[in-house]
Amino acid sequence: MCKACDYTIHGAQHHFGWDNSLVPAETVAPGSTIEFHCHDSSAGQLGPSSTVEDVKTLDFGKINPVSGPIYVEGAKPGDVLKVTIDSFTPREQEGSAWGWTANIPGFGLLADQFEDPALTIWKYDAASPDKALWGSEGKVGLKPFCGTIGVAPAEAGPHSIVPPRRVGGNLDIRDLAAGTTLYLPVEVEGALFSVGDTHAAQGDGEVCGTAIESPMNCVLSFDLIKNETLKFPRFTTPGPVTRHLDTAGYEVTTGIGPDLMSGARDAVSGMIDLLCAQRGMSAVDAYMLVSTCGDLRISEIVDMPNWVVSFYFPRNVFE
Amino acid sequence: MCKACDYTIHGAQHHFGWDNSLVPAETVAPGSTIEFHCHDSSAGQLGPSSTVEDVKTLDFGKINPVSGPIYVEGAKPGDVLKVTIDSFTPREQEGSAWGWTANIPGFGLLADQFEDPALTIWKYDAASPDKALWGSEGKVGLKPFCGTIGVAPAEAGPHSIVPPRRVGGNLDIRDLAAGTTLYLPVEVEGALFSVGDTHAAQGDGEVCGTAIESPMNCVLSFDLIKNETLKFPRFTTPGPVTRHLDTAGYEVTTGIGPDLMSGARDAVSGMIDLLCAQRGMSAVDAYMLVSTCGDLRISEIVDMPNWVVSFYFPRNVFE
Repeated sequence: MCKACDYTIHGAQHHFGWDNSLVPAETVAPGSTIEFHCHDSSAGQLGPSSTVEDVKTLDFGKINPVSGPIYVEGAKPGDVLKVTIDSFTPREQEGSAWGWTANIPGFGLLADQFEDPALTIWKYDAASPDKALWGSEGKVGLKPFCGTIGVAPAEAGPHSIVPPRRVGGNLDIRDLAAGTTLYLPVEVEGALFSVGDTHAAQGDGEVCGTAIESPMNCVLSFDLIKNETLKFPRFTTPGPVTRHLDTAGYEVTTGIGPDLMSGARDAVSGMIDLLCAQRGMSAVDAYMLVSTCGDLRISEIVDMPNWVVSFYFPRNVFE
Repeated sequence: MCKACDYTIHGAQHHFGWDNSLVPAETVAPGSTIEFHCHDSSAGQLGPSSTVEDVKTLDFGKINPVSGPIYVEGAKPGDVLKVTIDSFTPREQEGSAWGWTANIPGFGLLADQFEDPALTIWKYDAASPDKALWGSEGKVGLKPFCGTIGVAPAEAGPHSIVPPRRVGGNLDIRDLAAGTTLYLPVEVEGALFSVGDTHAAQGDGEVCGTAIESPMNCVLSFDLIKNETLKFPRFTTPGPVTRHLDTAGYEVTTGIGPDLMSGARDAVSGMIDLLCAQRGMSAVDAYMLVSTCGDLRISEIVDMPNWVVSFYFPRNVFE
């Protein structure tokens, strides 16, 4: 329980997809602090004891629930909603904090190469979530964040939760962690804010399509900036963003050519090949692992006509 | 002078573009260490006293000279050239280490928005190149590296130096700095290695098209790995890569949509708008500044059909 919070939004107060006609779960004044109980992105379809068989039967109508929506008093189209991300508390299940990473057929950067479902279950200590164990040897530094965070779009009707948009949503930006301040463009009265899809860790790109998907409570504070022009979400981090990963340096693969998407695919494929060769991992295990901690960077985007996309894998995972 | 070096390649021993028929500047055995004297990417056309007028008359036939080529004994197509990047020493001119950053018309991620030439001259202390000054207020942490590093392509004839390719070249990867080990696929006998385009600092993306372009000597060591499959260059860094930038956190803007190039452009435009609004900078100054220290990251590339590209500007530049 959050003692400093003005409101609690419980897990039952969730919705699937965005729709500006949804009835608010709560109406709050700017300045309010709210604790949100967030489901994992399977909405509880997967648990600490799940197997790959459960991935095969996932109901995609119940993917990525978000808790809310919150009506913020005074918010109008053309304003900016300032969201301060205060804290995350992983929720235990079967005696431990936990998360899942899956290869879901048809989803992910290399979906054409990884056609079979796969599942990894992670367990970690909720009291000191500094490391989650991969199999018997790797450790991924954790940095909890909310994968989906946004406000309702102006366009009427239901909208899929999967793609992010200018009002936020399924942004999957791994630095939307505790201490970060996020600014979102408001498109409807009251903003209609929702959050969910909490992740214990993820690399830039979320390349296999999933992170360490983990149910958590998160505490957020809200303020309103009137009449501020903002085309897309922006955010401020209070300090370093990769020090939980960078201590031992990186292995880096590249993809070079005139298309950024192909470059990203080549860079990730190169890293999977490298981990398979160096560590004897299976390709799908490498694919899932790098999704939780490897970072896709655009090294250069100006040396016509070829761009360089690089994929950074933190060596401290295996050290 | 490098006392531990087996050879020195002087600035006069340079070439423009790649061509596997070039006569080697030196033939060396694997295990050799070489000091390369590298010109800045204007080949001396710009200097510490240059003005924007000099940008207007740049001769593009003399852009991006590389020192070499080096014939590595025993190297054959299908091998991998392992290059250990030992050190960089900025060369002083007019009494100081220095560099330039320019907006060159027709070149850069936002060339359509920045049509006029612009030039910034940086000066810094070669003995302790930890910070270069931007105007009177900003400081960009330096991390010298080689922008262009590669071997000759198999395809006969001359090839432009501008685009990077699978054998390397104008990679502009900001972490090809001291301590990094680079692996390059060999396509011709002897590999025919060259290096140049030294930069004192650059962000991921090199978004305005130039970094802090700075003449330097660099020391590299060479080894050969026989018959190793490598599709694109890869590298290993010995430790953290952003700690010279990350102490005060980041301002981050995003671009969201189905095209990574548009996303990158929107994220960089958003940052330029933010710096103009927050600090009263001119747009072209902001564009050049962020090219030297801002990082383009692909935050997610799986939430169909919209991807998120984020641009990270280090707050310690102004703190």
